[in-house]
Amino acid sequence: MKAILKEKPGPGFVLKDVKKPEKLGPREVLVKIRRTSICGTDVHIYKWDEWSQTRIKPPMIIGHEMAGEVVAVGEAVTQVKIGDLVSAETHIPCEHCLQCKTGRMHVCQNLEILGVDRNGVFTEYAIIPETVLWKFSAEIPLDFASVMEPFGNAIHTSLVTDLTGKVVLITGAGPIGLMAIQVAKAAGASLVITSEVDSTRIQMAKENGADIIINPLKEDLIKKVYTITKDGVDILLEMSGNKKALEDGLKCVTMGGEASLLGIFGGSIDINLDSLVIMKGITIYGITGRRMFDTWKIADELLRNKKVDLSKVVTHILPFEQWEKGFELMLNKKCGKVVLNLD
Amino acid sequence: MKAILKEKPGPGFVLKDVKKPEKLGPREVLVKIRRTSICGTDVHIYKWDEWSQTRIKPPMIIGHEMAGEVVAVGEAVTQVKIGDLVSAETHIPCEHCLQCKTGRMHVCQNLEILGVDRNGVFTEYAIIPETVLWKFSAEIPLDFASVMEPFGNAIHTSLVTDLTGKVVLITGAGPIGLMAIQVAKAAGASLVITSEVDSTRIQMAKENGADIIINPLKEDLIKKVYTITKDGVDILLEMSGNKKALEDGLKCVTMGGEASLLGIFGGSIDINLDSLVIMKGITIYGITGRRMFDTWKIADELLRNKKVDLSKVVTHILPFEQWEKGFELMLNKKCGKVVLNLD
Amino acid sequence: MKAILKEKPGPGFVLKDVKKPEKLGPREVLVKIRRTSICGTDVHIYKWDEWSQTRIKPPMIIGHEMAGEVVAVGEAVTQVKIGDLVSAETHIPCEHCLQCKTGRMHVCQNLEILGVDRNGVFTEYAIIPETVLWKFSAEIPLDFASVMEPFGNAIHTSLVTDLTGKVVLITGAGPIGLMAIQVAKAAGASLVITSEVDSTRIQMAKENGADIIINPLKEDLIKKVYTITKDGVDILLEMSGNKKALEDGLKCVTMGGEASLLGIFGGSIDINLDSLVIMKGITIYGITGRRMFDTWKIADELLRNKKVDLSKVVTHILPFEQWEKGFELMLNKKCGKVVLNLD
Amino acid sequence: MKAILKEKPGPGFVLKDVKKPEKLGPREVLVKIRRTSICGTDVHIYKWDEWSQTRIKPPMIIGHEMAGEVVAVGEAVTQVKIGDLVSAETHIPCEHCLQCKTGRMHVCQNLEILGVDRNGVFTEYAIIPETVLWKFSAEIPLDFASVMEPFGNAIHTSLVTDLTGKVVLITGAGPIGLMAIQVAKAAGASLVITSEVDSTRIQMAKENGADIIINPLKEDLIKKVYTITKDGVDILLEMSGNKKALEDGLKCVTMGGEASLLGIFGGSIDINLDSLVIMKGITIYGITGRRMFDTWKIADELLRNKKVDLSKVVTHILPFEQWEKGFELMLNKKCGKVVLNLD
Repeated sequence: MKAILKEKPGPGFVLKDVKKPEKLGPREVLVKIRRTSICGTDVHIYKWDEWSQTRIKPPMIIGHEMAGEVVAVGEAVTQVKIGDLVSAETHIPCEHCLQCKTGRMHVCQNLEILGVDRNGVFTEYAIIPETVLWKFSAEIPLDFASVMEPFGNAIHTSLVTDLTGKVVLITGAGPIGLMAIQVAKAAGASLVITSEVDSTRIQMAKENGADIIINPLKEDLIKKVYTITKDGVDILLEMSGNKKALEDGLKCVTMGGEASLLGIFGGSIDINLDSLVIMKGITIYGITGRRMFDTWKIADELLRNKKVDLSKVVTHILPFEQWEKGFELMLNKKCGKVVLNLD
Repeated sequence: MKAILKEKPGPGFVLKDVKKPEKLGPREVLVKIRRTSICGTDVHIYKWDEWSQTRIKPPMIIGHEMAGEVVAVGEAVTQVKIGDLVSAETHIPCEHCLQCKTGRMHVCQNLEILGVDRNGVFTEYAIIPETVLWKFSAEIPLDFASVMEPFGNAIHTSLVTDLTGKVVLITGAGPIGLMAIQVAKAAGASLVITSEVDSTRIQMAKENGADIIINPLKEDLIKKVYTITKDGVDILLEMSGNKKALEDGLKCVTMGGEASLLGIFGGSIDINLDSLVIMKGITIYGITGRRMFDTWKIADELLRNKKVDLSKVVTHILPFEQWEKGFELMLNKKCGKVVLNLD
Repeated sequence: MKAILKEKPGPGFVLKDVKKPEKLGPREVLVKIRRTSICGTDVHIYKWDEWSQTRIKPPMIIGHEMAGEVVAVGEAVTQVKIGDLVSAETHIPCEHCLQCKTGRMHVCQNLEILGVDRNGVFTEYAIIPETVLWKFSAEIPLDFASVMEPFGNAIHTSLVTDLTGKVVLITGAGPIGLMAIQVAKAAGASLVITSEVDSTRIQMAKENGADIIINPLKEDLIKKVYTITKDGVDILLEMSGNKKALEDGLKCVTMGGEASLLGIFGGSIDINLDSLVIMKGITIYGITGRRMFDTWKIADELLRNKKVDLSKVVTHILPFEQWEKGFELMLNKKCGKVVLNLD
Repeated sequence: MKAILKEKPGPGFVLKDVKKPEKLGPREVLVKIRRTSICGTDVHIYKWDEWSQTRIKPPMIIGHEMAGEVVAVGEAVTQVKIGDLVSAETHIPCEHCLQCKTGRMHVCQNLEILGVDRNGVFTEYAIIPETVLWKFSAEIPLDFASVMEPFGNAIHTSLVTDLTGKVVLITGAGPIGLMAIQVAKAAGASLVITSEVDSTRIQMAKENGADIIINPLKEDLIKKVYTITKDGVDILLEMSGNKKALEDGLKCVTMGGEASLLGIFGGSIDINLDSLVIMKGITIYGITGRRMFDTWKIADELLRNKKVDLSKVVTHILPFEQWEKGFELMLNKKCGKVVLNLD
């Protein structure tokens, strides 16, 4: 079968024929991949950055976002059956640590990531544990089912608190930021403000429904937010991983408000917790992964009832063979989500 | 000034000239009433039902829903000033009981209700304590500001839990049920099912956006809900005060789900808490009044940002003098909310 | 091996030799039972009451509370290993319904109960799925580990809300009520009031640390509670399954307070939700089972750090062979928990 | 009357005779001060540090912690009456901003602090708005009522989440840290670990009930915490304002855990939010002031029911005239709380 491989240390991937996996563990499932999509993490591995060099052990099949069909199941599998259409949580929990035993598998102490710590889904068939499979509703197109995992990041970050009637600031309008705009709107936020510096992304933020878009390189974000909102924003959704965005975002949050952090800053940052967090009585949520499977259930409901429209985020659907074009788009940031079709 | 009075015990009201109030206590405010609207409670007092006979002490000016303008303030008033447009929370808290001191004024131990325990707002000028005034946003039309109080009931009932991506059942599509439909939709509920038996209200439920409307006299509510939803509904919003609606509604709630009860049943009811609540692990919220002023803030945000459209609920706007026609409409249930205009 | 059996329909059990179970499913575990304890449910099955007649399919090994040792594991088992000391959640979840997939296994749509829907633990060896096993801390004596399941009921009921500094009313001082007294005290409740009519249980309530015990047959519960507390109680823990206890208990709850219901009323009851729940803004929690395994984690922490002392609840520890004496004690209610020792 | 004054810019205070305040605003209350206690903030003002120089406008009466008696009330006062014993919230809210109107007065946008922004309570009589007075229970000694305000900090910080059965790490055992130890123990924390470097405070931490005390200058805090707890701590209560304590404390927090920050770091700090907060899925609570008056109610309940023993924190009770000795103790950190007696 075909697979996109990090064959050996160094930049780039190769598309090669590899042996189709056969032997399933008792709780493993063989999934025929029908769609897969490219994550920023895949781009990091493609580039072979510092993080990849320490974490990835080639040769390995890359990729973790997907929609596919169950074609074989291990003997102890009870949660899915052959023919089921599934997407997958990519964080594979151990099931026995304290966190796993108490309903917090997304912060498992022994997490393995699909396509990072074990073979991934940029291929025709993948072995995936039944524990992380999500049977998505029939109404959801495969192209959108493939991006339910990053869509779940947007949901997990946005819905840490009830947004109905709330004023929301989203810093960063990359693919997950765009989805967060739609989630916040669907959740009844009264006003969704987005800050972004890239012109393509500003345009996409508009199309995804942001009420107000501020380019902090051209306007004073804090001043504008307080002019528009008077009291500041109820909640900050930090999606940029940019230190200035965090600082200014926190300054925009009203006294006693909240901030949900998904963006990664790439190391330590210098920040005044006294004035930005403590003396304002602000609550900060560090966000990782998706709640299993509360987040997936909401994702499914929003998608099947068309409360969001991911066609505004999935900007490219390419045949699997054109994966190199997909990575090029991602490298140039001239896209939302890029889906690869294996049908 | 003109006022609608319960002049003496017995059915009906009279419109009479009464003395304009003058002397303000230190924290009292004189409000020129510009809109007032009719509540079911006013209809009970009009009919002089059993409850009214024990609670109302005539002569008294009736009415509690309103939008008006501050025209004079007591010497210790700090929260509003002359010229402010205001609506009012009608539950007047004592400010010194445990509940009032701990942010739960809506369940004050010594509550007085406007137009029930003291003179109300079916008149040209009313004295109202500053504590219960809400300065609504300029974007909100007076006709809608007048019904913010019952709209607040709909919000308080609906938003006991985050509705985003949830399946909601609303039993009863009276005016507050209609507003709850809109609130649930605005809050991102993935599916809003409504049960109602009255044909006028069924029609209004449609216009207010219910996804599915079931007439339990014609269809098997429980069977239909499980056919549509598979797992049942996440939350029941009980707005009918009907025992059968509560029972069937609870049967529709998924294991571990929630129910928010606003409707009043008019006395004891026979109910199986074992099978409907305890063994299902369900949480029941008794709802009274509106959180001061968390609920009002959300009401304001939803209205000023047009997340709801109360023109579909406010079916009649009449000159104040036509109050009798308003009560006729209410008695015949051929209306949503009826607003009286004093301008 | 020896086992206590409901051999055929009708009252009573027999102790018989049965075949030791051998074949384990891939995720099943063979547990050598070292302690087992008697639950009120076992007494119902013993008596062969109406509920038992419809639910129990003899011949069946009865019993569900236990502490034991893992002696064999199925081939796909990852969560325990041979030699582990375990207690067990007795509600066996399906792992694939909505509730199981979203961290609410205790309200699984397809729950099976150990010793009720399948062979139980009143025996020497029992097959139990790995999903429901809890490896308890080494500091916890076997006698207490055996009653972690009902202790979990007490914890699940009591800790629906933070009790620190709260006034608590517990109606009913059976074994779980007694454990709830200790949990409430350990959790920092400022005052724990208990109502009970049975003199043995009143005495045990004292020994378990209730601050105030009221016998509602001899004193006016409501009047006394308001005399002592002024504002009423913050939360009611209903453990009696008695209608009058529920009604009076709700009357004792302060405006906007909470009630957690574990007791089963045995059918419909006539209750005024208007005045007791809705107009008071009260929240009611229906409680079933134990959160898996949040509740078990707290149980483990409280036990191993000696925040509670279950020696005051476990009143009898008998050799397994004296099971009939154990049931006699339970039938006469002259005991707290009765533990059977198989060592 | 006598008063401790910051008479003019520069270090130190003076005790002088000043005019007793007379004219009360409509909602103001004259309180005869019977006990007052010294806060770290008072020490900052005494030293005339950078913060004091920008914030304090001499001449001004200093001090904000107190217990006293109502001796006169303004004409619109309804919440207290002459003879009431009161302590006071020292953060005076505006009552009209969004936060004040929605039950979050402790993060008022226009907060004024007693003894900082207006005359304080190191004197015989003080004018205090009725809004911030708390009528404490008769069972609470004046010496403890005087320190209810900092005790409230300990409660607000500790009880952001239910501590029952949780493992807690408190970094810093100053007076509020000591009180937090007692609060965490009273709340049923299964293990309370404290880190502290000062030998006097280590001794006091022991006396206040810390289960384990670690001196991070002598032992590896992180290593020891993981040795003892296996999974890390459920929650960090940061009371030291020390960057290293925060970093190491966050490293000790289990995946998905919580951290409540009260200590002030004195400016920006360099911190890795990626690894310490975001990728661990941790929630951070910035803590300021006390919830009005939820925190005070809990403080009152814990004190009057003797769930905590503040005699282990209030190490010195001096006659008001010996205030200089009190400040000396505070400057040398050879004390817990110092109370000044004006009786």
